[in-house]
Amino acid sequence: MIDFKRTHDCGTLTKKYIGKTVRLSGWVHRRRDHGGLIFIDLRDRFGLTQLIFDPTVCSNAHNDAQNLRSEWVITAKGKVRSRGEGLTNPKLHTGEIEIEVLELTILSRAKTPPFSIADETIEVSEELRLKYRFLDIRRGPILNNLIVRSKAMQVTRRFLDSQGFLEISTPILAKTTPEGARDYLVPSRIYPGNFYALPQSPQIFKQILMVSGMDKYFQIAPCFRDENLRADRQPEFTQIDIELSFETQDPLFRTIEELMQMIFKDTIDADVSSPFKRMEYKECIEKYGTDKPDLRFDMPLTRLDDLIERSEFTILKDQLSTGGCVKALTLKGGAKLSRRQIDELVAFVRPFQLQGLAWMKRTDEGFTSNIVKFFSEDLLNELGSKVEAESGDLILIAAEKESIVNQALDHLRRHLARAFNLIQPNDYQFLWVTDFPMFKLDETTNMIESEHHPFTSPHFDDMDKIDSDPLSVRALAYDLVLNGYEIASGSQRIHDGGLQQKIFHILRMSEEDIQEKFSFFINALSYGTPPHLGIALGLDRIIMILSNTENIRDVIAFPKTQKASDLMLQSPSHAANDQLRELDIALEPSQITWV
Amino acid sequence: MIDFKRTHDCGTLTKKYIGKTVRLSGWVHRRRDHGGLIFIDLRDRFGLTQLIFDPTVCSNAHNDAQNLRSEWVITAKGKVRSRGEGLTNPKLHTGEIEIEVLELTILSRAKTPPFSIADETIEVSEELRLKYRFLDIRRGPILNNLIVRSKAMQVTRRFLDSQGFLEISTPILAKTTPEGARDYLVPSRIYPGNFYALPQSPQIFKQILMVSGMDKYFQIAPCFRDENLRADRQPEFTQIDIELSFETQDPLFRTIEELMQMIFKDTIDADVSSPFKRMEYKECIEKYGTDKPDLRFDMPLTRLDDLIERSEFTILKDQLSTGGCVKALTLKGGAKLSRRQIDELVAFVRPFQLQGLAWMKRTDEGFTSNIVKFFSEDLLNELGSKVEAESGDLILIAAEKESIVNQALDHLRRHLARAFNLIQPNDYQFLWVTDFPMFKLDETTNMIESEHHPFTSPHFDDMDKIDSDPLSVRALAYDLVLNGYEIASGSQRIHDGGLQQKIFHILRMSEEDIQEKFSFFINALSYGTPPHLGIALGLDRIIMILSNTENIRDVIAFPKTQKASDLMLQSPSHAANDQLRELDIALEPSQITWV
Repeated sequence: MIDFKRTHDCGTLTKKYIGKTVRLSGWVHRRRDHGGLIFIDLRDRFGLTQLIFDPTVCSNAHNDAQNLRSEWVITAKGKVRSRGEGLTNPKLHTGEIEIEVLELTILSRAKTPPFSIADETIEVSEELRLKYRFLDIRRGPILNNLIVRSKAMQVTRRFLDSQGFLEISTPILAKTTPEGARDYLVPSRIYPGNFYALPQSPQIFKQILMVSGMDKYFQIAPCFRDENLRADRQPEFTQIDIELSFETQDPLFRTIEELMQMIFKDTIDADVSSPFKRMEYKECIEKYGTDKPDLRFDMPLTRLDDLIERSEFTILKDQLSTGGCVKALTLKGGAKLSRRQIDELVAFVRPFQLQGLAWMKRTDEGFTSNIVKFFSEDLLNELGSKVEAESGDLILIAAEKESIVNQALDHLRRHLARAFNLIQPNDYQFLWVTDFPMFKLDETTNMIESEHHPFTSPHFDDMDKIDSDPLSVRALAYDLVLNGYEIASGSQRIHDGGLQQKIFHILRMSEEDIQEKFSFFINALSYGTPPHLGIALGLDRIIMILSNTENIRDVIAFPKTQKASDLMLQSPSHAANDQLRELDIALEPSQITWV
Repeated sequence: MIDFKRTHDCGTLTKKYIGKTVRLSGWVHRRRDHGGLIFIDLRDRFGLTQLIFDPTVCSNAHNDAQNLRSEWVITAKGKVRSRGEGLTNPKLHTGEIEIEVLELTILSRAKTPPFSIADETIEVSEELRLKYRFLDIRRGPILNNLIVRSKAMQVTRRFLDSQGFLEISTPILAKTTPEGARDYLVPSRIYPGNFYALPQSPQIFKQILMVSGMDKYFQIAPCFRDENLRADRQPEFTQIDIELSFETQDPLFRTIEELMQMIFKDTIDADVSSPFKRMEYKECIEKYGTDKPDLRFDMPLTRLDDLIERSEFTILKDQLSTGGCVKALTLKGGAKLSRRQIDELVAFVRPFQLQGLAWMKRTDEGFTSNIVKFFSEDLLNELGSKVEAESGDLILIAAEKESIVNQALDHLRRHLARAFNLIQPNDYQFLWVTDFPMFKLDETTNMIESEHHPFTSPHFDDMDKIDSDPLSVRALAYDLVLNGYEIASGSQRIHDGGLQQKIFHILRMSEEDIQEKFSFFINALSYGTPPHLGIALGLDRIIMILSNTENIRDVIAFPKTQKASDLMLQSPSHAANDQLRELDIALEPSQITWV
């Protein structure tokens, strides 16, 4: 039997091991032949160690080393020695030593990889990287992301377990849930023509667990949505799913804040301060145009409706008279932008249905631009102070329907931050956005709908407005936002049967609708439901932020493309006819062309 | 807003809290009206606490308490006081105190449950319990099993993380794997007529992760098999899945032994000694007739072929001459069994294709039975000492084809242990069964097949027999057995491409077969595969043993019936026509009648 049991991994040996005999096993990362000697960088998950093959020390090993190619797996026994003056590599933990090899065994050979593992700087198409995912992982960045992911999962469970949460696995062969996205279906063989659905989230199950008296539940849960994928979505994704009974928002927020602090500390050694900022949904939209503002830079939106009314700026006043609004934002130091640069900003907002941007520069000479003429001197000064523009700044003004202004300025705000480097690296700005609206009006049907889902509790202070003015009712629904991304969402749930009926009534759901959509769940809630609330954190998004990547596929071991296919497995694929017959499914498979 | 935030849970308060004002929230477990006072046992996951409503203390609370029914959810504020002499309940942690209630609020009412939550002794059909799973969990035993399960998962992850294993989640929307059981399929919408398969295990993925250089991997993985279910199987089940590189059997065994010790200690406070016993497969079959013997009791099988040859026992000798074997087992103290009891044992083995059992009693007077006449005095004494029968024991002898003898005596052995109470409670007997055969002969096709799977490594010592005598080759495959159950299974994998080709050749697999069955996997293995091995532990079975139940549904929060249906969710169910159209599936749903 070949002895391949390592005494050390490839990332451990330093000067203090000099003189020791060791055995290392790993992959040939690089080979260099130099002055009769052969140098191998041997690689494993823990690092690189330099092996040196000297024909005068062991001619057998040196001979065999001549055959070694990249990515072959070998085991080598040898002596740790100093690399000697001027030959050390300070970038490597093992950079001061090398192994003088006395014995070499090839454990397995490797075909030439389709792209270089050793040279990370070579650009490889993502399709090729996904097809050869097992080689892409070896390259380093993906491996590091997976290590971060593993650490984040461990600290999450350790912390929630220590807080008395029970980890309960809920079914994957489940049933259509009321989330509203498209389910993945699984045909039943025993009952042909019937289907399981993969869960879009464990929402129903976790509420049922509260009815069961489980008190505090968590799960790192796989979730499934058969949607047309955007770049940051996957058909299967992962939620840190939490629910607890007899509690309210504040203690849950504290728990999540502590959890996030521990995750950031344990994975990337970042210190996150708490308590996190909080902002009501309404204020958040007013100030940032979005419910997920990036707070790593300032630059709030300022409403100018009243000020514009007092100006001579007819075009903007027309917007106000037709129900629109006027908001501005100030780019610090933006007065130095050229006319062309400002035109580019105007072009940037156009895809968001904003026809234009008015603008003014404030300099030591006062306000300049072709719209200054519509304002009195006093009004200009009032505007300047209102939008906190000082000399050297640029004021950008948008007027349109409120939702359009908000969306466009939100995008513009983030665009400016990127374009003018306003974001510090390793800055983590958390924000709780609270008190989301309970209902919204569907603009086409003019019907009242749930903003979150119909089991979300109204705000305790707004109970008296549910009948009289439902659209003004706030929900006990909250999101956690980090650096402009929604990383968690949750709510207090309704535990009172009477209140639940009232909400269904406002949503104009008939008893029949309710039974069809939620029958067993509504029934379960009628057997003694405790007050409860919960939250779901998007693990993939959190790992993306920790790993500093915009690509969700970088944080999942075996991800799928935007067409929901796995290029490595070549899945989905044809099924055996026998099995389709058992499922009573007859259809012609469409052809897939794999890269 | 109603204040329902507990100061304590229902399992905490003891004498040292007397005089304190507290708030408890929970479910009405029992109500007793007694001498003008109302007593409520309030329940949550942590325990029971007695509330007392005294009209002279608070008439409002007392009035409201008169309306309380079982399983209503309430919150109560009151003072902790001593129950007083003779009224304490030593079975309860809170049994020395009660709460004199000053304020009561009903949080939610409950319909009358279909079975009693408070009285665990009432037998309820499993169908009803599954339909109302959320109520069944409240009853206690299931809740306790789920707590054990959560603890076992935490300790598993904590330990494996501390040993340098990375937790990696592998896809659930995957592809047919070579396990051989039936896959659950998921139709693809984007590529109609193509399917994902839910993984029967992460086997392929974990080996790929070793090729990726992940070094040490684990996952508590959901697995899926669309099989006709036995009582101890579920369509979705859970594996503790482990794989590691550059290692061999011994260190893996030590890791698993330590893991099992920690699980047993942390969940049920049981001390398990290590190292675990080990036995080669061949010896195990010889000695116990099975590869998963229950070692909580002795009673090995003894081969008597040679001894019977020397007797006059023609019927048994005929079995030997036609290729059969003769084995015996000894029931200590069995000489006192009546003729009827022995006849029952003979009847017991018949369903296992054993036509009969010969038997002898050994008493102070010597050997007795109607077969003694076939043996000389010397032979009887030799037999007695061989099967370790002393005065007072019963010897049971079976002769048939070896596989039949083994199967029947294995069942008989376990039957005797149960029938004669040979098993101590809380006894945990682990056994590693090693060196399983590499190949087996399919009796109908006479073809050589893999015993485990074709990626299992032959024993390093048997490499030279692979071509000449493949059926004698041992594999580096092992099971972990606990109390007669296989709780884990694994193997060293082949890492050498040449050896892998040789094994495929022996299995008479053509290049075409290989490509069709394993294409991308075989390709991946050719890019530099480290020596690696792994194991998968059946989490559900381990929790069953820890929870002392024979029913797998008792250890899963939301289990399925033997027809793979979820009685609570009423799943599987009809799918919307729109969605079936998108999937290009046209079929008439079969009707399911729900209980």
